[in-house]
Amino acid sequence: MAMRENLVLGLEVVLANGDVWDGLRALKKDNTGYDLKHLFMGAEGTLGIITKAVLKLWPAPKDVCTAWLAIRDPNAAIEILSEAYAASDDDNVGSCELMSRTCTDMVLRHIPGTQDPLKAETEWYLLLEWSSARPRQDGVAGMSDKMEQFLADQLEAGRVLDAVIAQTEAQSRNMWRIRESVAEASRTEGPGLSYDVSVAVSRIPEFIDKGLKAVLEILPTIRPYPLGHIGDGNLHFSFMGPKGMDRETLALYSAAITRVVNDLITSMAGSISAEHGIGIEKLDELAHYRSKTELDVMRMIKRALDPKNIMNPGKVLRLS
Amino acid sequence: MAMRENLVLGLEVVLANGDVWDGLRALKKDNTGYDLKHLFMGAEGTLGIITKAVLKLWPAPKDVCTAWLAIRDPNAAIEILSEAYAASDDDNVGSCELMSRTCTDMVLRHIPGTQDPLKAETEWYLLLEWSSARPRQDGVAGMSDKMEQFLADQLEAGRVLDAVIAQTEAQSRNMWRIRESVAEASRTEGPGLSYDVSVAVSRIPEFIDKGLKAVLEILPTIRPYPLGHIGDGNLHFSFMGPKGMDRETLALYSAAITRVVNDLITSMAGSISAEHGIGIEKLDELAHYRSKTELDVMRMIKRALDPKNIMNPGKVLRLS
Repeated sequence: MAMRENLVLGLEVVLANGDVWDGLRALKKDNTGYDLKHLFMGAEGTLGIITKAVLKLWPAPKDVCTAWLAIRDPNAAIEILSEAYAASDDDNVGSCELMSRTCTDMVLRHIPGTQDPLKAETEWYLLLEWSSARPRQDGVAGMSDKMEQFLADQLEAGRVLDAVIAQTEAQSRNMWRIRESVAEASRTEGPGLSYDVSVAVSRIPEFIDKGLKAVLEILPTIRPYPLGHIGDGNLHFSFMGPKGMDRETLALYSAAITRVVNDLITSMAGSISAEHGIGIEKLDELAHYRSKTELDVMRMIKRALDPKNIMNPGKVLRLS
Repeated sequence: MAMRENLVLGLEVVLANGDVWDGLRALKKDNTGYDLKHLFMGAEGTLGIITKAVLKLWPAPKDVCTAWLAIRDPNAAIEILSEAYAASDDDNVGSCELMSRTCTDMVLRHIPGTQDPLKAETEWYLLLEWSSARPRQDGVAGMSDKMEQFLADQLEAGRVLDAVIAQTEAQSRNMWRIRESVAEASRTEGPGLSYDVSVAVSRIPEFIDKGLKAVLEILPTIRPYPLGHIGDGNLHFSFMGPKGMDRETLALYSAAITRVVNDLITSMAGSISAEHGIGIEKLDELAHYRSKTELDVMRMIKRALDPKNIMNPGKVLRLS
């Protein structure tokens, strides 16, 4: 579950004045002067244009185990993740993806060749993948041995209702294809709304619960299909419009829905854009939810590094 | 081997204009606006004063194994570290500390109660610690079982010449005490020089080799005692002055020695201050080794956030 912060070691950036900053370092520890790397990475091109990067690489995993779990509810997902960290020797937990049944139904309906990994009448699923850089050895418990024991324990604890471990590469690919086709499948369902939020991992179930109630109060026939990278506290809080509702009609509700979702995530100390930045679309939202102090500091930096406002103007931040 | 970047999730900072920035978030993923957190963390108080922080915590390790290795040379240390990552399921490698024999001799001479963990006539030692959040279980290989197998393999490969695994808490404490008493022991030896550098992990042996040659050419009787957190590419490249030489005489050599060390680390794309920042002492060094472009960007930010130069003035950066 590696983030941008750990992945990028160095940058080359073209600045507003035409100078090129060579920050192509490859160090794990460096405490010399201001940290310009993170500043440019988070600025969406408004402080400079990133032209090169030094990335950190990891050895390819040599032992991977993918499993598909029907689970009790989102609370169970958080507990399973926490138990998985402990049971798998920590860093073996590569992926932990929560999906509602609406997600998987939608994919199975629209994406040819996908198969339901598990016939289980539950509302929530988890795609769990463990991996190790160490190859499997005879007589030593590998990832799938550990996963099997883990799932048995979780079944007994009532968090997992049913589960299957991919026995072949094709089965694992099918599980991932379901996860990765949700966005594509949703487009064939017609217009929708989607929020890319993050919150402390432990508060995801509370956010889902309160968020669904608030949105359904505004538009009771909207069809939620939440899914998330829960190890990162990141949720794609997504909705298909009500059956048959066109884009224009849905748009009448979207401002009110956006406000309740972002109010809720802000009240829970979360982020209104976990992965996808601000751009133009969330400009007003950032201005609404961030303190004047924070916006002022950002503006001071923007004006200092790009006094003529020529770097991706109009994005991220209003200058006045 | 967690770094500042992974440890600090949020900050509160008092700014030069008296405003308080509340950035006390606890999110793993957030892409909303400029990354102010890293900017303030790297600025040594020159952009604002950090008054609160949200830290990430890890579960206390439940199974720890500490070992003391006599090794062939620094190249062997890098190979052992790489093999350790693979053999221990990656994230179990908690510490990997390289010490020269001069370090351990100095500690054993000056720090009462320390004992040589291993009678081995080698020039280089490694303190290796593996830990897991998972408690030891009967019938499952724990940290010390894995370490034992690992050390046997490394002995056979000729990288390790002799090794001992701490069997008691007291033995482990003794190993750590030797490592952690090097600085204290060095002070009783009289005046010295020390450089806190970092470089790509794989290039540490090359740096040690070239750096020692260059320094000994300037002052052949100086007594090196290099040690380092090699997993981070971080080396404390340290020297006791020649026997009997006073502080004033050593100071006559220090400018020339500092220059060859920092020239070398810069030519190897390393950092002249891995852990300890710039402050006043390395102000000239930062100015010497960083490009005009980079210093200009830092100055633009400093002037924008602290136009009256009241925040820790004179540190990190000369303003003109």
